Amino acid sequence: MTQSIHVRRYDLLRQRVDRHLASLITPGAPRSLRDACAYVLSGGGKRLRAILVLLGAEAVGGSAARALHAAAAVEIMHNFTLVHDDIMDHAPTRRGRATVHVRWDLNTALLAGDTLLAIAYKNLMRTRHADPAMLAQLFTAGVIGVCEGQALDLEFEQRNTVRVADYFSMIEQKTGRLLTVATELGGHIGGGRPEQIRALHRFGHHLGRAFQLQDDLLDVIGDEREFGKAIGGDILEGKRTYLLLRARERSRGSDRAILDRVMRRKTVPPARRETIAERRALVTRVRAIYDTCGVLDDTRRAVQDNTARALVALRALPASRAHSMLHWLAGALVHRSS
Amino acid sequence: MTQSIHVRRYDLLRQRVDRHLASLITPGAPRSLRDACAYVLSGGGKRLRAILVLLGAEAVGGSAARALHAAAAVEIMHNFTLVHDDIMDHAPTRRGRATVHVRWDLNTALLAGDTLLAIAYKNLMRTRHADPAMLAQLFTAGVIGVCEGQALDLEFEQRNTVRVADYFSMIEQKTGRLLTVATELGGHIGGGRPEQIRALHRFGHHLGRAFQLQDDLLDVIGDEREFGKAIGGDILEGKRTYLLLRARERSRGSDRAILDRVMRRKTVPPARRETIAERRALVTRVRAIYDTCGVLDDTRRAVQDNTARALVALRALPASRAHSMLHWLAGALVHRSS
Repeated sequence: MTQSIHVRRYDLLRQRVDRHLASLITPGAPRSLRDACAYVLSGGGKRLRAILVLLGAEAVGGSAARALHAAAAVEIMHNFTLVHDDIMDHAPTRRGRATVHVRWDLNTALLAGDTLLAIAYKNLMRTRHADPAMLAQLFTAGVIGVCEGQALDLEFEQRNTVRVADYFSMIEQKTGRLLTVATELGGHIGGGRPEQIRALHRFGHHLGRAFQLQDDLLDVIGDEREFGKAIGGDILEGKRTYLLLRARERSRGSDRAILDRVMRRKTVPPARRETIAERRALVTRVRAIYDTCGVLDDTRRAVQDNTARALVALRALPASRAHSMLHWLAGALVHRSS
Repeated sequence: MTQSIHVRRYDLLRQRVDRHLASLITPGAPRSLRDACAYVLSGGGKRLRAILVLLGAEAVGGSAARALHAAAAVEIMHNFTLVHDDIMDHAPTRRGRATVHVRWDLNTALLAGDTLLAIAYKNLMRTRHADPAMLAQLFTAGVIGVCEGQALDLEFEQRNTVRVADYFSMIEQKTGRLLTVATELGGHIGGGRPEQIRALHRFGHHLGRAFQLQDDLLDVIGDEREFGKAIGGDILEGKRTYLLLRARERSRGSDRAILDRVMRRKTVPPARRETIAERRALVTRVRAIYDTCGVLDDTRRAVQDNTARALVALRALPASRAHSMLHWLAGALVHRSS
């Protein structure tokens, strides 16, 4: 019952963010640029970061309406990073649609990303707040953090050994940073006290970790239809996930040799075209190694642990509808199958 | 005598900007990203945009010191656009050094550009001013304008007819926009009155036009050693300059056919490798067409006309050292040979 109220409200907030984003595309800009930006902003998705801004503001007693520009800013900034990351990763699709550099070209994707970042600032600076420079600095530190996280991720691709601790530093910037920026911005705009902002920061931090670990896990144990991408994609790509790095640390002999070969797939594609059966067999084999050396259980525990810490952080905030939404959200993200 | 005082002061301001930019690179970021950003910011150049911010502030009675963060912001933003434009234009060199995507790779150049834009905002927001959100909005409108100008430029490359009026709209965004952002930001930070800010805007606008037209002209009539790039580069590349577009409008018969072929070079490279003699002959031939149909004189006149208008705009500002520097600068940019 309460569950479905939250689902409904989340959906209402999501629609509000979508409508706001749609209103931002105005005529006047060169056609290719405008079309590409509109395409990106209409791409849907959970709008999680925007909604965290709105709920962050409400959770400290402020209004979601006043945080809407900042919510849009964080969501647009997230989309800017996706457009540029997709170029760097040579990704053909995103959320079931062609990526911008595939649908248009590299130049359009590059410029659309740049423009989206500027549009994000334009929205952020529409926020009514006593200290807009502080909001801009918080946001900017987030942009720099996400770029540094992506740079680390690219550096890791070239390395055959990456420590689990390095992985967490990278993920904290690349994925986690935007979630803490979202919750903190909401807290500031809602007029939160310093200890409330710190609590929102901790909530965002642990939620980000849980979210990313769950993402890594879903690639191996998820349901293909629900998750929206082929199972084992990370393995076939040789992506350095927590699972792969931890399993590599723990394994020996032939298991380790297999994981090393998986790591090399990132930079050296398989010498000949593999059959679907071969790819499936590899995913199954690696999943079995993950299971045997206990990283699947490990990851599940880490997801639960981080979710629990996120919920502990919430205790510093007063009971409210937003508080209860954030509580529900943390659980929903962990139990999601897509 | 006065001349050399201005040259000396310009040089002092340039060094101040250079030192400030060098101080921004701090350890901590992933190595490739930090190195690439440091490489870009240490690339030298005239630092014209930064110095326009400083002089804009002084020209309305403010202090250059207080405008230094914003001056750095505009300069860094300019460098962000150069890094990404060089990717889009496949440019191998910039100011005599390898471009970032050549020296490192596409991904590093993409990320370094993104990071530089964020660093620009970080600096801008360090400015002490009563209305930082207004400064950020002015700056952001500039970023969007420059991106739109670049998008138009790319669209023009695909078109075999571009009207001179379209060229000016494009240039006004791509090149001119940053100069008006620079002078206006300076005026605001210096505490200028609205009519003073408008005067600084007009000064930047006409200076930008004069500057770009002079740039187009120098490609054809400049001295190779002084200008630092091969003469006729724009012609060999098929770049849509004011000279080419205006000459194409005016020419007929075989002259027009030659200019049409020049336009096509942008998208369709010459079928076979041309000898240096052939390339020189083409440049000489096109230069002769420009001369015959009067576009060289036309452009010289437009440069002078815009310089004169820039100087008229300055009349709205009180006499001061900065005023006299701006006056000198407008002349120096027009009479430059590099």
